[in-house]
Amino acid sequence: MKTTLLSHSDLADLVGRIGLDRLMDELIERLASAFVDYDPRATEVPARDGFHYQEPEPGLIEWMPLMKRGEMMLMKVVGYHPHSPLPTILSTFGLFDTATGAMIALADGTLMTALRTGAASAVASRWLARPESRTIGLIGCGAQAVTQLHAIGRVFDFAEVLTHDIDAAALASFPERVAPFLSEGTDVVATPVDDLVATCDILCTATSVEVGAGPVFDGSRTRDWLHVNSIGADVPGKVEVPLSLLRRSFVCPDFPLQARVEGECQQLLPEDIGPEICEIARCPSAFVEWQSKRSVFDSTGFALEDYIVLELMLEHAREYSVGTEMEISGVGEDPRDPYESLSKATNKTHFASGDPIAGVRLSRE
Amino acid sequence: MKTTLLSHSDLADLVGRIGLDRLMDELIERLASAFVDYDPRATEVPARDGFHYQEPEPGLIEWMPLMKRGEMMLMKVVGYHPHSPLPTILSTFGLFDTATGAMIALADGTLMTALRTGAASAVASRWLARPESRTIGLIGCGAQAVTQLHAIGRVFDFAEVLTHDIDAAALASFPERVAPFLSEGTDVVATPVDDLVATCDILCTATSVEVGAGPVFDGSRTRDWLHVNSIGADVPGKVEVPLSLLRRSFVCPDFPLQARVEGECQQLLPEDIGPEICEIARCPSAFVEWQSKRSVFDSTGFALEDYIVLELMLEHAREYSVGTEMEISGVGEDPRDPYESLSKATNKTHFASGDPIAGVRLSRE
Repeated sequence: MKTTLLSHSDLADLVGRIGLDRLMDELIERLASAFVDYDPRATEVPARDGFHYQEPEPGLIEWMPLMKRGEMMLMKVVGYHPHSPLPTILSTFGLFDTATGAMIALADGTLMTALRTGAASAVASRWLARPESRTIGLIGCGAQAVTQLHAIGRVFDFAEVLTHDIDAAALASFPERVAPFLSEGTDVVATPVDDLVATCDILCTATSVEVGAGPVFDGSRTRDWLHVNSIGADVPGKVEVPLSLLRRSFVCPDFPLQARVEGECQQLLPEDIGPEICEIARCPSAFVEWQSKRSVFDSTGFALEDYIVLELMLEHAREYSVGTEMEISGVGEDPRDPYESLSKATNKTHFASGDPIAGVRLSRE
Repeated sequence: MKTTLLSHSDLADLVGRIGLDRLMDELIERLASAFVDYDPRATEVPARDGFHYQEPEPGLIEWMPLMKRGEMMLMKVVGYHPHSPLPTILSTFGLFDTATGAMIALADGTLMTALRTGAASAVASRWLARPESRTIGLIGCGAQAVTQLHAIGRVFDFAEVLTHDIDAAALASFPERVAPFLSEGTDVVATPVDDLVATCDILCTATSVEVGAGPVFDGSRTRDWLHVNSIGADVPGKVEVPLSLLRRSFVCPDFPLQARVEGECQQLLPEDIGPEICEIARCPSAFVEWQSKRSVFDSTGFALEDYIVLELMLEHAREYSVGTEMEISGVGEDPRDPYESLSKATNKTHFASGDPIAGVRLSRE
């Protein structure tokens, strides 16, 4: 029984073969279709749960399970560690067969998480942002901002990218990090946060603001049609968007069960929360009026998005023969005998012969 | 950042090198110490959760997280599929660094689960069963029964092993499966279930009885000192031990939070449930009277046991240089740049040079 392993370098290899833009375009289309087709009876997604801690450094590790009934189960384990020298959001995807419990695939989830979070914002922005949007604002210029800009830039034609980060190094290195995919002639301009918010058509917030320290901007001055993708609110108490702006906006959660606990929706009463992204997906024309009004996509991170990006990458991995196949779960001839394969591994007489096995019996002598 | 992979054959190889008996002895000692030292503030163990289904075949996949604060988090994903051609209980262990979220180790959990479930019964039996116990009864002769007998046999000197299974093939092949570790002169005797229960000193139930179909024996006739290790009750509604016997016994759960939902303790009122195994561990002499009275160890499967067996096997893997080290999570030079390593993987010009990368830009042309 083989497990397919996709390491970070396998995934980078695949992205290189597929092409970054083509991959992002595929992912955006798949995700839009998945939102349309999502049926909670066929695909079960419980709210994520996890361990949150303040010592020795603040952080959390969460698990995000999803089951496609009668097929497979995804278990994503994701860490959020803003003080780590590694990527703040680091994750691993495990895919399991629901007929046996065996692990079908294991993949580094860090790049895929960044890709799918970008793609989700692109899908939401396509439905809720003004089609003529020419200016995007980014508050928080870390890893997630790169894929936000890349993904949303596949749907809109931006003339200007306005950036803000309280970390000067993140702000300074951002243009270089997005150069590989940015259209010729698009300006990346570091901008004071109030001006940024007042000017942009689409805003993405992707910060590590601490619990209780948000929101990350004022929001009293905005375009009438501002669309916000709020990415960073993902733990109880952490928010990025001011309540006053939420109240003046159409708020669409990715996954309401989770958004009410961890997202911007924490700040709202149930009656002030709009329909979820999958409802908009099923009939975008019913929500087209919001393209010219204020809207917020409350993106807490939906396991369905993880499932879609993993499925896509596994398909490409098979196509390009990338990845490692490994026999992790062993299956002997007799599933009732947990010690059966021991004799094989040690190349000793099979247990059934009745002879004691030197290696195994050693401790008895 | 390397992840240590331990496949089933790596683990079998290790067991062969260590010796089955020595390994089981080590595990029993470590587990007993872990029960003594268990501090829920330092080691957080939420009750497991999972997906349960009846179609296309009855089964479940559950996740069992554990966090050792400031060190690591274990995520065990375990399947229970009684109609699967693979082992009924099949699992995978993932170990993660709580400072970064990175995966430290991935291991096949099937053998380790069988080992630790056996070791837990051995520990409980040492504290709660009659020291002179000479007869063990096994109801259910599948994979778990093998390690139950092996482990408990390391603590007691059995003259007779009484077996019962509704599956004739499992019953017939059992003596062969336990021959490698059974002491010379120990008889394995298939026995009608009522006689088995009436005669044995220690009883292990390890069945796949269906939800609502238990208990698996009558229990009106037993030794006054019978100690039961009930292994199979691990989903809501599944029980193996008759309520009448539970009521006449001292009932010790492995993990009360879980046992009340999934174990034999489902059948009891809170006031009828005895102290958990860790409380007995801290002062076994306070419970020594129960060695001559009826007792039941309600073993639903405690993630602490998984952590201990994994820790032990990882230590031995380092000692014997067994296993595979693999770079699954990739870390570039700039954690803020999810696309950074793409250029490296494809051996193209680094993004920072400003040159577009042929492979990556392909879809644009």
